[in-house]
Amino acid sequence: MPFPSDLQIAQGAALKPLGDVAAAMGIGPHLMEAYGEHVAKIKLSAVDELAGRPRAKYVVVSAVTPTPLGEGKTTTTVGLGQALCATGRQATVAIRQPSMGPTFGIKGGAAGGGYSQVVPMETLNLHLTGDFHAVTAAHNLLSAVLDNHLFQGNTTGIDPHDITWRRVLDVNDRALRNVIVGLGSRMDGIPRQTGFDITAASEVMAILALSRSLQEMRERFGRIVVGYTKGRTPVTAEDIGGAGAMTVIMREALKPNLMQTLENTPVLVHAGPFGNIAHGNSSVVADLIGIHSGEFLVTEAGFGADMGAERFFNIKCRASGLVPDAAVVVATVRALKAHSGRHRIVAGQPLPDALFAENPDEVHIGGANLRKQIENIRLHGVSPIVAINAFPGDHPSEHAAIAEIAAEAGARAAVCTHFTDGGRGARELAEAVAEAADEPSAFRFLYPDSAPLREKIETIATKVYGAAGVDYDLLAARQLATYEANGYGGLPVCIAKTHLSLSSDASLTGAPTGWRLPVREVRASVGAGFIYPICGDMRTMPGLGATPAAHLIDIDRDGNIVNLS
Amino acid sequence: MPFPSDLQIAQGAALKPLGDVAAAMGIGPHLMEAYGEHVAKIKLSAVDELAGRPRAKYVVVSAVTPTPLGEGKTTTTVGLGQALCATGRQATVAIRQPSMGPTFGIKGGAAGGGYSQVVPMETLNLHLTGDFHAVTAAHNLLSAVLDNHLFQGNTTGIDPHDITWRRVLDVNDRALRNVIVGLGSRMDGIPRQTGFDITAASEVMAILALSRSLQEMRERFGRIVVGYTKGRTPVTAEDIGGAGAMTVIMREALKPNLMQTLENTPVLVHAGPFGNIAHGNSSVVADLIGIHSGEFLVTEAGFGADMGAERFFNIKCRASGLVPDAAVVVATVRALKAHSGRHRIVAGQPLPDALFAENPDEVHIGGANLRKQIENIRLHGVSPIVAINAFPGDHPSEHAAIAEIAAEAGARAAVCTHFTDGGRGARELAEAVAEAADEPSAFRFLYPDSAPLREKIETIATKVYGAAGVDYDLLAARQLATYEANGYGGLPVCIAKTHLSLSSDASLTGAPTGWRLPVREVRASVGAGFIYPICGDMRTMPGLGATPAAHLIDIDRDGNIVNLS
Repeated sequence: MPFPSDLQIAQGAALKPLGDVAAAMGIGPHLMEAYGEHVAKIKLSAVDELAGRPRAKYVVVSAVTPTPLGEGKTTTTVGLGQALCATGRQATVAIRQPSMGPTFGIKGGAAGGGYSQVVPMETLNLHLTGDFHAVTAAHNLLSAVLDNHLFQGNTTGIDPHDITWRRVLDVNDRALRNVIVGLGSRMDGIPRQTGFDITAASEVMAILALSRSLQEMRERFGRIVVGYTKGRTPVTAEDIGGAGAMTVIMREALKPNLMQTLENTPVLVHAGPFGNIAHGNSSVVADLIGIHSGEFLVTEAGFGADMGAERFFNIKCRASGLVPDAAVVVATVRALKAHSGRHRIVAGQPLPDALFAENPDEVHIGGANLRKQIENIRLHGVSPIVAINAFPGDHPSEHAAIAEIAAEAGARAAVCTHFTDGGRGARELAEAVAEAADEPSAFRFLYPDSAPLREKIETIATKVYGAAGVDYDLLAARQLATYEANGYGGLPVCIAKTHLSLSSDASLTGAPTGWRLPVREVRASVGAGFIYPICGDMRTMPGLGATPAAHLIDIDRDGNIVNLS
Repeated sequence: MPFPSDLQIAQGAALKPLGDVAAAMGIGPHLMEAYGEHVAKIKLSAVDELAGRPRAKYVVVSAVTPTPLGEGKTTTTVGLGQALCATGRQATVAIRQPSMGPTFGIKGGAAGGGYSQVVPMETLNLHLTGDFHAVTAAHNLLSAVLDNHLFQGNTTGIDPHDITWRRVLDVNDRALRNVIVGLGSRMDGIPRQTGFDITAASEVMAILALSRSLQEMRERFGRIVVGYTKGRTPVTAEDIGGAGAMTVIMREALKPNLMQTLENTPVLVHAGPFGNIAHGNSSVVADLIGIHSGEFLVTEAGFGADMGAERFFNIKCRASGLVPDAAVVVATVRALKAHSGRHRIVAGQPLPDALFAENPDEVHIGGANLRKQIENIRLHGVSPIVAINAFPGDHPSEHAAIAEIAAEAGARAAVCTHFTDGGRGARELAEAVAEAADEPSAFRFLYPDSAPLREKIETIATKVYGAAGVDYDLLAARQLATYEANGYGGLPVCIAKTHLSLSSDASLTGAPTGWRLPVREVRASVGAGFIYPICGDMRTMPGLGATPAAHLIDIDRDGNIVNLS
């Protein structure tokens, strides 16, 4: 019998009434708002109501540098949550909401996989409670208010050629990357070039993820910089009168969404900021609730530990005030072999046979990446645990190689089979995580708020990425000076580089050294509260392939969804 | 004490648990899915489950030709529903979901007003259960699939200069009316000119409103024509592989939303197609449920009786198979005075004093419009009832004048004060509606499916609008011939003309005669199932004014919404 598809497993799930799932977290029905049968929003009053309860151990799940093979980070996050519950611990999982763009683009959902999934996966991957749609609506309302501001006389004197606020849609649509708007007659607006990003890339999304309260979200919206005057004075959403209406559109979206895993472990799904131009972590509000809802809160950070976990520590924890107790680094045999640099792996192409030959030495070579990512966790004073996510075709000697790498780096490690076995496949990992989290946390930020922006960039580049130094283009240098003059120097930085290498060159595997980080330009998400240097081509609007999933996804005669994955 | 604002009244409402509201309709909890505390979706299985129950009287609410003064059609629809319940009859109200564009544009919600409102009005006016967002997402996914189809090689041979499918957003944004997409590098798509409409104008919205089942919606999506080859062969959503994914995105949106009035009368809120380029009526699915949920189903049609009610009869009832029993025509003293043509009334400007002087003769002159709209109801074999919606400053002699006009036309009439008094203010109207609905229905379509398209257009123009004839531009004549050649000749027609006059000239008040309807071009909504001749400038994307509501809407210190109306 072939292993069932994710959708088949998900559709066969034995879901518990969501009230029971919430009750296990100590959350009563008065704090819940049902959205359909299997999703509820948690009211924001839960944050204050739960604040006095014991604090859960706070565990972030990160990974080695991603490869086209897929390392199963969400699957491991879900599997670990299930395993903690299976070993008698009350755990809550916190993940980002998937974007609908990739759901209909590249095949591959974001609900975990196998027997470690969030369910119902159709609901998770489609709309959920509409938070992404609210982000789209709030973002584009500000865009409309901005173009109307130009049309009605431009009282702020904003330079139409220095507008930084674009539009967003939650769809993979390359034709929207660069557009000219305002064509037609004199009553149809002021023509200018702009473009659309995918909704996950919206600053509104980052603000949703980083706000602790409705009032804070309102203030952050007000601080959004939409562009500059000819004299380089920033013009904000508050200046043009859009921030209040955006807050009203986003009011319900700030409430986290409660779902469950296949084993009924509670899952908070909330916000989905991009992992390169934004900080790539689920919401602060969800974690402020989850941190008082049991013994463990397991949260996922986007991409490798140099990306998602670094931002988790230095951006998200700075915003939330929460202190992490342990950090899981997901590694696979296949990924470390890929990091040896000996295989040519292309997304969508068949994998080379050589990748499957027993070769622990190659794992050791590619293990340089894992060593560096473990170090990146340690840099922040947090205990690392390596989750060896087993795949069919792995060899025991190769698992042993990963365990050796971990042991040499002083990290705990465990082989996990949660994809095929659910929570019981990650029991060893759960025990290792529990032990690590029991050690006193020595958590520290990598840099102080007060450090100059260049120092922040250079600290991350040299300490986390392993760069020899940083080079700034003239534009970038000028922008950094302007931002410090504008009073944004105290913000953390979110370096936008490729997620496919520790370096800024996607083709470099392992743990490259001797390279320099090139900063081409620097942008500011003032409302979200970070500065993001651009170190490469960052695609903020994906396209569809020759045979997108949209061509295959459909309903059957009974109205069931088919080909969604 | 000043009369409270709509928002104040709405926020003070005594809402019943929605399960009780549904129970009054004979709908059990197994047919409901809660969406927050005060909205539920009704499962589609309700259509079959309720089908054997007694059929309610089916009442459509229409109006005289709209003026900038506002006639209170939604308010009367809600007030009538409340009044039917207040007089011991089980009634359900069915209305369209408001668009978020105007909510943040021109001040003025769409939840009714005063003591005849649908609540919570914030929920109704913002997102509701996300159906509009689903329409936006499904529509724009098809746009992305279409531009990707061009980019990946255009196997259908669609002519890039003859693409009819645009994009949509639920925002008032004039800068998006005309855009060029696909700029940038070779990997950023094929450059071409296109534009955005507001979501209510999407054919997806019309399809949502006209489908009786999920499978029918799937088939309608497949029939959407997105453009033509150079040989004028239509290319459909099915041809380019988008219809299945659209259905998956729209699956939840097809379930109607249940809310309640201030007096706990059940309200089905579902879909919101435009009233000029589409048919402007709430959904067939909601009515298929509501028709078996009590003694009366009161549904609203957009604009005047020549527009919304004509399409209700000839498009919506044709799609649903339901037969109306009575039709209310809402009239106000102020509107009929405006239809006398003696006052210059501009939206947003102070009203002329002369409008408020006691002048029943002027009401009689403007009453020509009411006489014609009553006739337009009679043309379809349905009993008309005139709802005289009282405003402060009206004079009893003027109400009497309207009653005389109605009596001369053989229609029942009643003065209503539901805005200030709620349902008890419309009891007389409720009795008149009940009497009219008890008469045997002689309902008939205005034209058979088999009539040629030109005959359908000419029938509506001459019989309903009072035109002397129809003139076709060469383009329009060619398009009509092409559509008939394409096999679309059996579709009903939805004439896109101004809603501000019975004629195609918005400045003509009363009941103009001797004019000819100019058809400039003809478009086809093949999926929705109608042909729409364009007879004037149809604005499908509104703009924001100098001081849009978006500048004022905000939250207060307690997180409550302010300035939403």
